[in-house]
Amino acid sequence: MQLSRAARSAESSAIRDLLRHADRDDVLSLAGGLPAAERFPVAAITEAASLVLARGDGLQYGLSEGDLGLRELVAPDGDPGSVVITTGSQQALDLIGRVILDPDDPVVVGDPCYVGARQVLQANRASLVGVGVDRDGLAVDELAEHLAGGLRPKLVYVVANFDNPSGAVLAADRRVRLAELADEYDFLIIEDDPYGRLRYDGEPIAQIPGDRVLRLRSASKTLVPGLRVGWMSGPQFVVDAVVIAKQAVDLHTSTVSQAIVHELLSRPGWFDAHVAGLLPWYANQRDALIEAIERHLPTAVFHRPDGGMFVWLRLPGSDTAAVLGDAVENGVAFVPGNAFAVDRDLGDHLRLSFATVSAEQLDEAVRRLAQVVHPA
Amino acid sequence: MQLSRAARSAESSAIRDLLRHADRDDVLSLAGGLPAAERFPVAAITEAASLVLARGDGLQYGLSEGDLGLRELVAPDGDPGSVVITTGSQQALDLIGRVILDPDDPVVVGDPCYVGARQVLQANRASLVGVGVDRDGLAVDELAEHLAGGLRPKLVYVVANFDNPSGAVLAADRRVRLAELADEYDFLIIEDDPYGRLRYDGEPIAQIPGDRVLRLRSASKTLVPGLRVGWMSGPQFVVDAVVIAKQAVDLHTSTVSQAIVHELLSRPGWFDAHVAGLLPWYANQRDALIEAIERHLPTAVFHRPDGGMFVWLRLPGSDTAAVLGDAVENGVAFVPGNAFAVDRDLGDHLRLSFATVSAEQLDEAVRRLAQVVHPA
Repeated sequence: MQLSRAARSAESSAIRDLLRHADRDDVLSLAGGLPAAERFPVAAITEAASLVLARGDGLQYGLSEGDLGLRELVAPDGDPGSVVITTGSQQALDLIGRVILDPDDPVVVGDPCYVGARQVLQANRASLVGVGVDRDGLAVDELAEHLAGGLRPKLVYVVANFDNPSGAVLAADRRVRLAELADEYDFLIIEDDPYGRLRYDGEPIAQIPGDRVLRLRSASKTLVPGLRVGWMSGPQFVVDAVVIAKQAVDLHTSTVSQAIVHELLSRPGWFDAHVAGLLPWYANQRDALIEAIERHLPTAVFHRPDGGMFVWLRLPGSDTAAVLGDAVENGVAFVPGNAFAVDRDLGDHLRLSFATVSAEQLDEAVRRLAQVVHPA
Repeated sequence: MQLSRAARSAESSAIRDLLRHADRDDVLSLAGGLPAAERFPVAAITEAASLVLARGDGLQYGLSEGDLGLRELVAPDGDPGSVVITTGSQQALDLIGRVILDPDDPVVVGDPCYVGARQVLQANRASLVGVGVDRDGLAVDELAEHLAGGLRPKLVYVVANFDNPSGAVLAADRRVRLAELADEYDFLIIEDDPYGRLRYDGEPIAQIPGDRVLRLRSASKTLVPGLRVGWMSGPQFVVDAVVIAKQAVDLHTSTVSQAIVHELLSRPGWFDAHVAGLLPWYANQRDALIEAIERHLPTAVFHRPDGGMFVWLRLPGSDTAAVLGDAVENGVAFVPGNAFAVDRDLGDHLRLSFATVSAEQLDEAVRRLAQVVHPA
């Protein structure tokens, strides 16, 4: 008896494995993508839970597509039938993979790419094609060259707002061009948007246009991750197939979690006020991290992200994976660039999160990192 | 752009589709496997939720294998490393399928078989082989003949206690023989046990022995389904692979749901007392359904289940799928036998649940059913 081929080739996530080791009290972790627990609306969630549970909401089996009231609230067009609630947007990626991909179908992702997307697309037997990412996001021109050269992807995956790990925002003209290419070459765009509401500077950019976009949203970064509530909208034939697939894989997402999110989102103005309160706090975190980088890592090449949770750096001449062990020894954790690589060598890159460690400690964290990158 | 081959061949669950139509106020539904909402421990869950949420438990991202404290409580051997928490035991079935099955691998199931198991195993590209079920459960002799004839399944799926839909308990000698066959022919046994605690008569039977058993447990039937908390234990190489697969598909199960279950199960004696309170109530429901069947459907062939939620009937000469529409028209819903069929024709069978409709209304429900089965 042995495991399936897929399971034998699966890798554990470098990020998650690292989290286990970096979980020591003496390690300042800039590694994980954990939102700031001190900003969780604990009182509001506790109150909402008491309310919905005392009403008996969310205890029985529910619909695979999710709570009707919650879907009405989050549907882009107000039509609950166009939305399915998922166990985080991670599950939406899995379900899309299941209903769209046959073995070895090509899927385009940024290179670097969010590790969880790479893992779940590979678990669904995608053949990943990496396209470069610069500070304006996915290099859509490079994608166009691949397409002109014969590549026929079924899916293009993009985090258009404050990409993980690059922090980039996909430029307006690239959004339009991407939608045109989707029409021309008959592919779907997965627009994964966990960070879009976490914009600290500048104005939002109009979303990717067209009717070939699978829009993934999540309560994890703006509310709390533990509830595992996300949602997906997009072309009806995909939504319908995802509902059937979801029925088979877990029947439905925790209805208790859904009822809590529903209750909070239905309070007039509550969610917007909550997010508005997060923005200056996260902006201050980002600024503290950037100051620390400028102070302790003067050779680092990076851009200042306008939102999200991450700064993506290049340290010319370094091998960031090689120094990770020393860094953890020295009391700081980060994610090496190659953890996000698809085809490219990103060995001199690394990702730092400014969401988890307090602003006061970010300077110390980067100081510790600099000690192992540039030993005295 | 079209769906994957798997998605194109996926069927929506007859049970779930039916639930939508049978959800009218004037329909008494004996169809769904919904546990009795009036027996949900609403106050205890509400209190537990307030407690754990006010502590801030269960809001941050958690481990893919699940909450450590909950795993310590439910691990058969007390080792939390041998257990993974899943989004209901339905998800355990999916994850096992993913990590064990390659396309077209044979999997043995009872015929009839729980619809959700059949769906998710087929979604994982299993080639299902149905083995007969009698009132002593899976016909292990028939399985032995298949094996002697060359069948080499990777998995054998069985609901050993109060099977869905048959209500049967796998006899003690069959349990031992099944474990011997697993050793001899190198397969794993999935023992799905949502109903084991719901025994109304007789003594529990020793569980399937050996170290080739994947044991699936669930809080859905004894606590509440909406939390979507189940767990799986078994051979370590499978548990480890399932954790990696789970990381890709949804990162982890709702930590809020897990924290509530953890809090309740950690209260000394609470869960046992809660289950003890359910038993006479469900036994009374079962008895009411059986009385109604004996009164209104005197030709029905069935056995009285010692536990669980279902009575599985044969109505000689009937075509239960054909009368379903009339039955719903007449104010009663059930699941036709062929919804559970793998290879056999179970067209004269049907499944009735005694969990959902009140004891007082069960007589009326079966009277309505008899009117369409044996029109006056």
